[in-house]
Amino acid sequence: MEENRVIDITRSSFEVHKVVSPPHRSTLLKLKNRLKETFFPDDPLRQFKGQTIKKKLILGAQYFFPILEWCPNYRFHMFKSDIISGLTIASLAIPQGISYAKLANLPPIIGLYSSFVPPLVYAVLGSSRDLAVGPVSIASLVLGSMLSEVVSPTKDPLLFLQLAFSSTFFAGLFQASLGFLRLGFIIDFLSKATLIGFMAGAAIIVSLQQLKGLLGIINFTKQMAIIPVLSSVFHTINEWSWQTILMGFCFLVFLLLTRHIGMRKPKLFWVSAGAPLLSVTISTLIVIAIKGQNHGISIIGKLQEGLNPPSWNMLHFSGSYLGLVIKTGIVTGILSLTEGIAVGRTFAALKNYQVDGNKEMIAIGLMNIVGSSTSCYVTTGSFSRSAVNHNAGSKTAVSNIVMAVTVMVTLLFLMPLFQYTPNVVLGAIIVTAVIGLIDIPAAFQIWKIDKFDFLVLLCAFFGVIFVSVQDGLAIAIGISILKVLMQITRPKTVMLGNIPGTGIYRDVDHYKEALGVAGFLILSVEAPINFANVTYLKERISRWIQDYEEEGAKKQPGLRVVVLDLSPVSAIDTSGISLFKDLSMALEKKGLEFVLVNPIGEVMEKLQRADETKDLMRPDVLFLTVEEAVASLSSTVKYQIPEHV
Amino acid sequence: MEENRVIDITRSSFEVHKVVSPPHRSTLLKLKNRLKETFFPDDPLRQFKGQTIKKKLILGAQYFFPILEWCPNYRFHMFKSDIISGLTIASLAIPQGISYAKLANLPPIIGLYSSFVPPLVYAVLGSSRDLAVGPVSIASLVLGSMLSEVVSPTKDPLLFLQLAFSSTFFAGLFQASLGFLRLGFIIDFLSKATLIGFMAGAAIIVSLQQLKGLLGIINFTKQMAIIPVLSSVFHTINEWSWQTILMGFCFLVFLLLTRHIGMRKPKLFWVSAGAPLLSVTISTLIVIAIKGQNHGISIIGKLQEGLNPPSWNMLHFSGSYLGLVIKTGIVTGILSLTEGIAVGRTFAALKNYQVDGNKEMIAIGLMNIVGSSTSCYVTTGSFSRSAVNHNAGSKTAVSNIVMAVTVMVTLLFLMPLFQYTPNVVLGAIIVTAVIGLIDIPAAFQIWKIDKFDFLVLLCAFFGVIFVSVQDGLAIAIGISILKVLMQITRPKTVMLGNIPGTGIYRDVDHYKEALGVAGFLILSVEAPINFANVTYLKERISRWIQDYEEEGAKKQPGLRVVVLDLSPVSAIDTSGISLFKDLSMALEKKGLEFVLVNPIGEVMEKLQRADETKDLMRPDVLFLTVEEAVASLSSTVKYQIPEHV
Repeated sequence: MEENRVIDITRSSFEVHKVVSPPHRSTLLKLKNRLKETFFPDDPLRQFKGQTIKKKLILGAQYFFPILEWCPNYRFHMFKSDIISGLTIASLAIPQGISYAKLANLPPIIGLYSSFVPPLVYAVLGSSRDLAVGPVSIASLVLGSMLSEVVSPTKDPLLFLQLAFSSTFFAGLFQASLGFLRLGFIIDFLSKATLIGFMAGAAIIVSLQQLKGLLGIINFTKQMAIIPVLSSVFHTINEWSWQTILMGFCFLVFLLLTRHIGMRKPKLFWVSAGAPLLSVTISTLIVIAIKGQNHGISIIGKLQEGLNPPSWNMLHFSGSYLGLVIKTGIVTGILSLTEGIAVGRTFAALKNYQVDGNKEMIAIGLMNIVGSSTSCYVTTGSFSRSAVNHNAGSKTAVSNIVMAVTVMVTLLFLMPLFQYTPNVVLGAIIVTAVIGLIDIPAAFQIWKIDKFDFLVLLCAFFGVIFVSVQDGLAIAIGISILKVLMQITRPKTVMLGNIPGTGIYRDVDHYKEALGVAGFLILSVEAPINFANVTYLKERISRWIQDYEEEGAKKQPGLRVVVLDLSPVSAIDTSGISLFKDLSMALEKKGLEFVLVNPIGEVMEKLQRADETKDLMRPDVLFLTVEEAVASLSSTVKYQIPEHV
Repeated sequence: MEENRVIDITRSSFEVHKVVSPPHRSTLLKLKNRLKETFFPDDPLRQFKGQTIKKKLILGAQYFFPILEWCPNYRFHMFKSDIISGLTIASLAIPQGISYAKLANLPPIIGLYSSFVPPLVYAVLGSSRDLAVGPVSIASLVLGSMLSEVVSPTKDPLLFLQLAFSSTFFAGLFQASLGFLRLGFIIDFLSKATLIGFMAGAAIIVSLQQLKGLLGIINFTKQMAIIPVLSSVFHTINEWSWQTILMGFCFLVFLLLTRHIGMRKPKLFWVSAGAPLLSVTISTLIVIAIKGQNHGISIIGKLQEGLNPPSWNMLHFSGSYLGLVIKTGIVTGILSLTEGIAVGRTFAALKNYQVDGNKEMIAIGLMNIVGSSTSCYVTTGSFSRSAVNHNAGSKTAVSNIVMAVTVMVTLLFLMPLFQYTPNVVLGAIIVTAVIGLIDIPAAFQIWKIDKFDFLVLLCAFFGVIFVSVQDGLAIAIGISILKVLMQITRPKTVMLGNIPGTGIYRDVDHYKEALGVAGFLILSVEAPINFANVTYLKERISRWIQDYEEEGAKKQPGLRVVVLDLSPVSAIDTSGISLFKDLSMALEKKGLEFVLVNPIGEVMEKLQRADETKDLMRPDVLFLTVEEAVASLSSTVKYQIPEHV
C-alpha cells in the first residue's frame, strides 16, 4: 500500500496532462472523411494506388467483371469440380424452380426460365465462388403475396405476369442502385433476430400454402395468414383426395429423410440434392402408370418447349399499378439481397476470401434487370443450393454456367416429361426446403443473450403468421430501430469509483471493490449526447447529485466536485453542448466544482467553439483522466484516496 | 523517464486486475430498472418515501394540484406583484388573443375566450410561476393552415370552428396522455436546431399572411407557402388601400420601436407590453373619428358580449373529419407543448425552482381539454407574454387569474369598443410578435458549432416557407433522427496510442504525442455495437489491420496483437456479439492475438452467455485497461514501450 501511495503522489506532483484540441481540419476535409467512412468504408480504390494507367484499366475491368480475374487462371481440374457441382445444383434447381414459381402464383416454367439467364449473368458479374443463383422461397412468397392482394393470378394471369416482371425490374434497379450509390448498409437494418423470426414465420406460411397441393384441395383461399388458411383447409374437407394425400405423405417422408441424411453427413450431400429430382421422376412415372390425373391427382400440365421469350414489352413503367410494382420490387429486392449477400459472405468466410457487398448488390441487381426482360422473376443466391454447391466442391462461378446449360437442355428437350408431374410432389419439395428456415437453436441463443432481441424475433414471427408477410417484417424493423433510438433517448449514466491501489476508475455497480472518493461524484455518460437525450441527462444527473447529497449528509466532507467522464461520449450536437453550460451554471449556484474528463476530438472542438467565456475550457476544469482530475482537485484538501483504501 | 519505467515494470509484475462479471440481476429486475429509467428518470415518488399516510395524501394532492402547495403560503405582498403583472399581461393578451385567432382563421372573439378559461385551469394545475397562458402564434398558424387545407373557413365557418375545437380536444388529450404515460421525451425529438429553423420559417409565413391586412387586400390566397402568397400580393395590387398601408406602417414602426426599447431595457418592459393595447385604442379612435371603414380600412366588426359559451356539443368524435382533427391535434399539441415546457423550464432555471415536465404536460393537456368544451382553441404558455410576466415581477400563478379576470371584464362589458378596431393594427401586432421568433444569433451559433445541425435548421426553415408548415417540421425531424441513426450505422473507430511516460492510451489522431506500441494495434469502438453497424465494423476493423500490416511491413516486429477497447461500447445485441466471434476467428487464422479491454456490465454478461467455448472470456484475452493488456502481452517479448518513448 505504501508503495502505491508513493506512486500516486509522484503522479499528482508532475503528471497532469493537458487536454488538447484535435489538430485543425477544415469543414470540407471533415465532410470528405465523413462521406468516405459512410460510403467507402472498405476503401475499394486502395488497390489502384500507385499503379500504371494500363494496370489501372485492367484492375478496373476486373473490378466490374470479376470473371476477368479468375478466368485466366482457370484450370481443367477446377472444371471437373465445377461440372460435378453444377450438375448437382441443377438437379435441385429444376424441381425447386418449378415449385417456387408456383409459390409465387406464376406459371411453373417461369421458375425454369429464372434458373437459366440469371446464373449466366451472375457468373460474369458476381464475386462469390459458391453462390448458386435462382428463385428462392422467401422472395417468391412475398412477390406472390403482395401482387395477389391487388390482382388475381387466376382471373388475370397475363397482367399478374406483367406485374411480376415489372416488380423484378424494380427490384433489380433498386438493388443495383443501392450498390452503385454504396447505400448497402440499408440491408443492415434487417437484424439477425428480425430475419430469424421472419423466416420462421414465412416458412410456416409457405408450408400452410402447400396444404392445397398436399391435400388435393381445389378451391383454396387466396389469403396468406394462418387463420383464413386453416379455416379454408377444414371447410374444404370434402375436396380432400386420399390418393393425393397418400402420395404426398410418402414423398414428404422420403424427402425429409434424405434431407436429414444430407444434414448429418455433409459428404452425402448428393442424397438430399438428388432426392427432389428423383421424387419428381418417380412420381411422374407413377402418375403415367396409374393415370393418376383421373384419380384426383392434379398434374402440372403441358409446358411449352423452348428458351426464355423476351419480356421487356411486358414491363409496366406507368399506369395505376406502378406504385404496387415499385413497392413489391423494393420489398422483394431487399429480402433477396439480404439472402444473397448473407449467403455469399458466409461461404466467403469459410473459404477465406472477400466478397464486396456493394459489388455483389450491383451484380444481383443487374442480373434481375436482365432477368425481367427475359421472362425471369426475382432471383438471388439461394442458401440451400449454395450449401450443396459448396459441399459438391464448386471452385468458381462456372458451376452456375453448368447449371444454366443443364436447365437450357431441359427447356429445349425435356419439357414434355414434366407434363404429368403431380403438383403434390412440388408441395412436398417446397415444405422440405422451407423447413430449414425455422432455426430454433438460433432463436434459443437469442433468447439467452438478449431478451429484447427475442421480442423483436417474436414480433416478426407472429406479425408474419397472423397479419401479413410484409407487415410482420415492417413491425420487426420498426421495433429494432425504436430500440436503438430508446438507447439514445435514455443513455446509461454510471457512477465511477476507484479500484483501490490503482488509478483505474470503474462503474461501482459492476466492480464491487471500486470505492467512491470522498467529496467527489464521478459520473460517466455512456452515449452520444444530443437533442434526444439532453433533457433526460439533465434530470438524471441532478438526481445523482441529490442522491449523493442525501446519502452523504451523514458523511464528511460533503460533495465538493462533480466529475463528468466524457470518454464514452462519441458525438455531440448543439443541444448537447448546452447541457454542459446548464450543468455548470446550476452547480455553480450550489457551490460545487464541475469538471470534464477526456472529451474526444469532436466534442472538444464543439465545446471550444460554443464556449465563448472559456468557462468549460480552463485547464483546471478539464482533465485527461479521472485519476488526474481527482489528484489535482484533492490536493487542496490533502490527498484523500488513501483514507478509503 | 527512468522513474516511469520503474513504475511500469512494477505494474506489469503484479497489477493485472481481473475483469469480473457484474453482479447477477434477474431479467425482471433489469426490466424494472429499465422501465424506471425510461419513464421515471426524475423519480417523482422520492418525496413520498418514509412518510405517514396522512402526509402522503397531502403530498399526493399537492402533486396533482400545485395550487395547494403555494396557496397556504400566499401573502399580500405577492398579491400586489401578481396584480401588476397580471394586468400587464392582460393588456398584451387581449390584442394578441384577437390577432392570433384571426391567424388561425377563427372569429376574433375565440382568442379572448381562449385567454379566459385556460389561464384559470392552469393556475390550479400548473407548477410554473411565470408561465402566461393563452393562444400563441405558432400553434394558431399550424391549426389554421392544417384545417383550411380541407375545410374553407369563409365558406363553412361553423364546421371550421367545430373542427378547431375538436382539434383542441385531441391536442389536449394527446398532451395529457404524454404526461400521464410519462412519454414526455417525445417532444425531445424536436431539437433546438429544428425549432430555430421552424420558428424562423413560421415567422416569415405568418408575416406574409399579414400582408393581407397590412395592404388592405380583400381577395387573398388561401395558401401558406411563400410563392403563392407573394404572387397573390402582386396580383391584387389594384386592391391595395393607401389609407390602410399608411396606418399599418405607422403602427408597425411604433410597435417595433417599443419592442426594441423593451428588449434593450428590461426594466421598461411595460413600454413594449402596453404598446399593443395602446395601438388598438388609438387606431380604433382614429377609425371612429375619420369613419375609416368608409375609406377602405377594414374593421373587426361587431363582437358578441358575454362569457365563453359551452362548446362540447360541437366536438367531432366520428365522421369523415376525425382523421384530420386527430392529426391536427397531435401536431399542434406537440408544438404548443414544446413551447410551453421550454418556456416553463427557462424561467424555472432563472428563478432556480423545478418544473416537472410530465406534470406540466398533464396541466397543459387538461387545460386544452377543458378549453375545447368552453369555446377555446389550442393554448399554451406563450414565450413573449411569459417574459413580460416575469419582468413585471409575477410571484405565482395568481397573475394568470388576474389576467383571466381582466379578460372576463372585457368580454362582459368592453366588447363594443373593439367593433371599430381596424384589422391592419392586428396585422402589425402579429408581425411585431413573431419577428422575435427569428433568432439569427442562435442560428449563427449553431453554424459555428455543428454544420450538420445547421443543415437541419435550413431544412426546417426552407421546408416551412416553400413546402408547408407541417412538412417542413416533418422533414427536419426526419433528418435529425437520420443523423442519429447514421452515427450508429457508421460509428467511429480510432487507433489508440500510449502517451509517453504514462499508462494513458488516447486517440493518436487527436493526441499527437501518443505513440503506437510495436506489435500492437489498439482500437477503440465509440458506439453501441448492434445489427445496424456490425457489418461496417467488421469491414472497418479489417481495414485498420490491413493498413497496419502494409505500413508495418517495413517495421519489425510485425503485428502480433489486436486490442479492442470496449470502454465506450455502451450496449450490444446478438448481432454485435457475433462480431467478436467472427473477428476472433479471422484473426486466429492470421496468427494474431485478439484481446478485449474493459467491457461494461451489459456487454460482459451477453458475451458470457453467448460464448459457450469461453474463447473470448479467458483471463488472458480480457483485460481491465489497455495498459494492463499491453504490459501482460509484451512480457513475453520484453517490455517494448520504452523503444518508442
